[in-house]
Amino acid sequence: MNGYSHDRDAILKRLSRIEGQVRGIARMVEDDQYCIDVLTQVSAATKALQAVALGLLDEHLTHCVRDAAAEGGPVAEKKIAEASAAIARLVRS
Amino acid sequence: MNGYSHDRDAILKRLSRIEGQVRGIARMVEDDQYCIDVLTQVSAATKALQAVALGLLDEHLTHCVRDAAAEGGPVAEKKIAEASAAIARLVRS
Amino acid sequence: MNGYSHDRDAILKRLSRIEGQVRGIARMVEDDQYCIDVLTQVSAATKALQAVALGLLDEHLTHCVRDAAAEGGPVAEKKIAEASAAIARLVRS
Amino acid sequence: MNGYSHDRDAILKRLSRIEGQVRGIARMVEDDQYCIDVLTQVSAATKALQAVALGLLDEHLTHCVRDAAAEGGPVAEKKIAEASAAIARLVRS
Repeated sequence: MNGYSHDRDAILKRLSRIEGQVRGIARMVEDDQYCIDVLTQVSAATKALQAVALGLLDEHLTHCVRDAAAEGGPVAEKKIAEASAAIARLVRS
Repeated sequence: MNGYSHDRDAILKRLSRIEGQVRGIARMVEDDQYCIDVLTQVSAATKALQAVALGLLDEHLTHCVRDAAAEGGPVAEKKIAEASAAIARLVRS
Repeated sequence: MNGYSHDRDAILKRLSRIEGQVRGIARMVEDDQYCIDVLTQVSAATKALQAVALGLLDEHLTHCVRDAAAEGGPVAEKKIAEASAAIARLVRS
Repeated sequence: MNGYSHDRDAILKRLSRIEGQVRGIARMVEDDQYCIDVLTQVSAATKALQAVALGLLDEHLTHCVRDAAAEGGPVAEKKIAEASAAIARLVRS
């Protein structure tokens, strides 16, 4: 079971809203709407994706990393290195 | 006509790919796939959205802002202030 | 003359404040202060640097890019391509 | 003792380099150097600060969070909530 499992419905609802946002941006481009208005929506969708990522990460730390750390040993080490790498990807994206 | 108009098909293709990425992430969550793998895909979709934004912004500067600046006066001023605000939103998102 | 020239004193004041922030972070590390408190200051200094960048960019668009666009031709093109590249570096940093 | 303690010299060296970068940017502004060149240096300093933050965070997870998680209970919970908040600040900065 994953860290986010008990939160799955909320995450899926957010993702479906983001999918709708991206489809809405495509519609704006098809309708030749003003660049700046399109950009505003792209920034909003980007922020929404980041919020999903931060939520997933929090659940991952709270459950998976915490359990692995409680267990200790190389599993703990691996989980933490993996989380650090995911955080770095997120900060740089 | 907008700055991105002659580039519309490429932008729409990118957006449709991002929509697919977001749908794929939802599927990963439904299938209870590993948090870190989900996060990797969220980072990738975020980067793809940023690339769309940078493309739109470049077209906007190359066409709309340039034309407005050539015209001069308050229109030029307004367009540049607007572009600056959009860049700030992008950098902060 | 550069776009930011008439704003130079304000920019220098901000940069000197950021330099002080970075020095303060080093002092916190020397004093072995708590990681999270150090991180909070690093985030603040990063945001302050971004604000300087957005200010410089706005001045650059308002003056250099606008003047070049008014002039037109390859100079305008070059300035805008250059500004776009700088924006991309900023968004990705 | 903090997570970064055994890494302190390397962190201090990086911070002193960043302080030098910021001072260098101020000198560029004083010398009225070209906006885009100044911006390039601001982006570089921002990236360097982010790298320090990611390093500190990794040490914090590897040591402080891991130890707290091994201990369990409300201390573990608090440390993880705190780390999540620091990550969110970092991603949004």
